[in-house]
Amino acid sequence: MVIVRSELWRDYPLPAGLAILNVDVAKGTRNALEYLLEQQHTRVALIDGPAASSSQSEQRQVYEQVLQERSLDYHYVIEAHDSRHDLESGYRACRKLLGALGPERPTAILALNDGLAIGAMRAIADSDLSVPGDISVMGFEDWEIAEFTEPRLSSVSVARAEVATVAMRALISLLQKERTVGALPLLPTKLIIRDSSGTAPRSRD
Amino acid sequence: MVIVRSELWRDYPLPAGLAILNVDVAKGTRNALEYLLEQQHTRVALIDGPAASSSQSEQRQVYEQVLQERSLDYHYVIEAHDSRHDLESGYRACRKLLGALGPERPTAILALNDGLAIGAMRAIADSDLSVPGDISVMGFEDWEIAEFTEPRLSSVSVARAEVATVAMRALISLLQKERTVGALPLLPTKLIIRDSSGTAPRSRD
Repeated sequence: MVIVRSELWRDYPLPAGLAILNVDVAKGTRNALEYLLEQQHTRVALIDGPAASSSQSEQRQVYEQVLQERSLDYHYVIEAHDSRHDLESGYRACRKLLGALGPERPTAILALNDGLAIGAMRAIADSDLSVPGDISVMGFEDWEIAEFTEPRLSSVSVARAEVATVAMRALISLLQKERTVGALPLLPTKLIIRDSSGTAPRSRD
Repeated sequence: MVIVRSELWRDYPLPAGLAILNVDVAKGTRNALEYLLEQQHTRVALIDGPAASSSQSEQRQVYEQVLQERSLDYHYVIEAHDSRHDLESGYRACRKLLGALGPERPTAILALNDGLAIGAMRAIADSDLSVPGDISVMGFEDWEIAEFTEPRLSSVSVARAEVATVAMRALISLLQKERTVGALPLLPTKLIIRDSSGTAPRSRD
């Protein structure tokens, strides 16, 4: 069996006949954040997954680390409630964030996945703010819908073709050898810049 | 086994132990169309499903029938290609439609499902037209995303709670009697008006 992106297994010995493909979430998150910082954003918030989700901690770690490297003290992480209803969770998380921070609101939001990001975009519009004029929004996973939202959603793609190829190779290898496949390379991600992200608005300070 | 909305079985005798729940697609389509006509639209196009899809013909039949009843001769049906990629199919169908019709373009579009409708909204924006200022868009099935698009998508909801209740009752009945359940009532639909539909723009003639 080949499992794609299950970091739940990270800390356990692999049962025989099992291969795990992991996406380089850390690198993807870093690329997305560094892109936002290059766009002059100094107030970047993270909409994280619900506490139980496995990859959320990895994104959060990278978020903390990158901000620290740049000596940015603006730092805001909000947890979405419910992994089954990303849109609604992203909407609520973003409304809460905008309500709590007022004029100190972020100029950019990075979300754990595109569903949360789309919910956040809706919340921003409902707060009479614009994307990306007031707040840039960056998703993750590059869902099919990302090309069709208004504005189109910038995201981090997890090169699906490559995932499929590596998964197939690992599967063949498992079938031939009937044992655990050795460590597989982390699958690369790609930053996809569309219309929901841009340069930071001029400082309101 | 209880199957929800499979009109494939409409013309065949039911095997024992099988119940089919059907949604009243015809009524839902009629309601959506009549609402658009009340909003002064006289040029309504239908983005139909791919030719193989079963409920498409029902929506198309209702579309033809309602237009005929109102003696409207504007009539345009475009078929989406691919039921697996609704967003892209809706996008392409709508681009084709706008390209082909030019100034005779519709002022309202009814789509077979919300994915096709969202693709159509993107195509309209990419043609420098606005929803609903230039073209109203109405989806079908009321997907979760419909509340989060910009603008929010008007759609026809298939009362999910009621579907679940009726499905459960049919299932229990099947388990108890171990035979085919008699004809089930068609499940009602509900028109959900959000922001993607409104009154027709003033005539451009």
